Amino acid sequence: MSFSFSVTHTDGAARRGVLTTPHGAVQTPAFMAVGTQGAVKAVTHRDLDDLGTEIILANTYHLYLRPGAGRIGALGGLHAFMGWSKPILTDSGGYQVFSLAARRKVHEEGATFRSHLDGSEHLLTPESAVDIQAQLGSDIAMVLDECLEHPASRARASESLDRTLRWARRGRDHFVQLQSESPQFANPGQAQFGIIQGGMFPDLRRRSVDETVAIGFEAYAIGGLSVGEPVPEMYDVTEQTAPLLPPDRPRYLMGVGTPVDLVESVARGIDMFDCVLPTRNARNGQLFTSTGRLNIKNAEYADDKGPVDARCGCYTCRNFSRAYLRHLFQAGEMTAGTLNTLHNLHFYLDTMKRIREAIVFSTLEEIRQEYRRIFP
Amino acid sequence: MSFSFSVTHTDGAARRGVLTTPHGAVQTPAFMAVGTQGAVKAVTHRDLDDLGTEIILANTYHLYLRPGAGRIGALGGLHAFMGWSKPILTDSGGYQVFSLAARRKVHEEGATFRSHLDGSEHLLTPESAVDIQAQLGSDIAMVLDECLEHPASRARASESLDRTLRWARRGRDHFVQLQSESPQFANPGQAQFGIIQGGMFPDLRRRSVDETVAIGFEAYAIGGLSVGEPVPEMYDVTEQTAPLLPPDRPRYLMGVGTPVDLVESVARGIDMFDCVLPTRNARNGQLFTSTGRLNIKNAEYADDKGPVDARCGCYTCRNFSRAYLRHLFQAGEMTAGTLNTLHNLHFYLDTMKRIREAIVFSTLEEIRQEYRRIFP
Repeated sequence: MSFSFSVTHTDGAARRGVLTTPHGAVQTPAFMAVGTQGAVKAVTHRDLDDLGTEIILANTYHLYLRPGAGRIGALGGLHAFMGWSKPILTDSGGYQVFSLAARRKVHEEGATFRSHLDGSEHLLTPESAVDIQAQLGSDIAMVLDECLEHPASRARASESLDRTLRWARRGRDHFVQLQSESPQFANPGQAQFGIIQGGMFPDLRRRSVDETVAIGFEAYAIGGLSVGEPVPEMYDVTEQTAPLLPPDRPRYLMGVGTPVDLVESVARGIDMFDCVLPTRNARNGQLFTSTGRLNIKNAEYADDKGPVDARCGCYTCRNFSRAYLRHLFQAGEMTAGTLNTLHNLHFYLDTMKRIREAIVFSTLEEIRQEYRRIFP
Repeated sequence: MSFSFSVTHTDGAARRGVLTTPHGAVQTPAFMAVGTQGAVKAVTHRDLDDLGTEIILANTYHLYLRPGAGRIGALGGLHAFMGWSKPILTDSGGYQVFSLAARRKVHEEGATFRSHLDGSEHLLTPESAVDIQAQLGSDIAMVLDECLEHPASRARASESLDRTLRWARRGRDHFVQLQSESPQFANPGQAQFGIIQGGMFPDLRRRSVDETVAIGFEAYAIGGLSVGEPVPEMYDVTEQTAPLLPPDRPRYLMGVGTPVDLVESVARGIDMFDCVLPTRNARNGQLFTSTGRLNIKNAEYADDKGPVDARCGCYTCRNFSRAYLRHLFQAGEMTAGTLNTLHNLHFYLDTMKRIREAIVFSTLEEIRQEYRRIFP
């Protein structure tokens, strides 16, 4: 089995480690840029390589609907299809079904929904989520879970957790069966992560951990956070849940977050993140810098010869002024999205690099203080 | 004076040469990618560098309206503003005033028009076109000419030519005066090209050449072609006009053209080109290949593992399949525009490179036959 994880350093609850996948190693804590439809928006693979990207996330829901998982499988899997040779994590498709699809109906079998593209009807089940991701051949597949609405009552959260646990059992069984029967899949070394749910209820989260770990996945993610709850609550659930998870497996906090969220969550024992924030905000003109957020649209930058961030070494900051970037944004040039995305991804990946170094030297607390000050 | 041109090889009427500007040398015949608003759409400067781009064109009309020529001048000129250190040619702004602006009115003084952005009223004169381009500090500035509608009667073409000649005289006088009075401009080595008009009438074209050359510019462009006339007529006018121009100055055919147009026009003595075709068509999914045009939207490419062009060495063809590029296009990913643009610009620049090599070996006729066959 080509999936492995080892923790090399710790600083309090924070861990620095290396995740090994069939398509290469990933230094953790790691941030995964989101490549929704098989492409990180506005940048090319060589831009990602240049940024030091080690792993990206792709969305199963989108790829399943277009161009189709069967098609991608026949073309050799997602890595071959995309021309991307490094690790890929795919989600289960569930989150988009719950947030994007029309007329969704959740039942014990799975979720019935209509495509947001053409209205066609589809059924996503724990088993089909496994099948689709096997066709994609990602390095890390996620099990299908039920995405709990927020806020949710304790009874509703408990009921939803029960279903998530039953789905986890079915998803894992199908994954194991598929791997034993079909070793010729695009990525025979694919790993499957379980997902911890339970809403904002510590005892439900604990039960979710106990029962999901009992099923036995290669590793575990914390789901159902960053769904509208207050940030302190998110940190609390993370802080309570992370240490319950097996210490020898990576912990992935799904859909999180802001630069401060990254630092705060690493400090609570998280190893992996994904979020659309750096890429989406870039396309909207919001840039993350060493002195805080900067909106390149603002008129004050129209004559500003300086770079977005004088302390940043990214391609954008090395070569272009705020005045030029503002002009590109105001003029609606596609390059605005590209240059802004390069900068924000550099900021995120550089943040992770600094975090990893700080863990080695037990100085994570310094970055934490710094980021709290920069991004109040 | 830092502007110079030397012809190093000829093959019939075709010339291979080197154009020297304050921002570096350009091998001719040369194709200039169009960077309308100070950016070649969908690609970054490092992409352009990687493609071997030696010169780009920027549109004075667009930059004058947004972000403003005064602003760009105050920021150190267009090169500093864009972060582009290689040669730039700017047009006079006239073509966009005639094609894009609202409620334009041409009179002896110049052209009054309203901005397509905010409706504000502006006056572009032969003198202000010089002033604006001096603020931009491009390496090559174009004189303001009147853009003749097509078709036009002989009387109308003659009348328009007279005005263009009067404007050329005014534009040149102002350029010479400005250079002697204000050597501290962003680009003191800026050259100014005159423009040959005269519609489809050989005698008017000849008169235009005689009188424009008598005014005396650093070099000359042929304008008023590729405006809707039949292609053979365009070739005829080019063939008749180019040899009348001074042999020791580069000849620029404005707004042309298709790959075949490039080869055919080089064979008639043209040294410089610009056209939006490779970049605009790329964004619409139309790609130029060694076997002809290819529309990446077509369903036939949905499962095609091959590159756009097996004989192409561009980044796109080296790394991505037709299936993936079709998916990106269908999914509306910005990267589709980027990868397609990289390919088409590579095709155009590679065509120019092959043309330059062929002139050295007196084999241009072979490329001409090949391109006529590929792009019938």
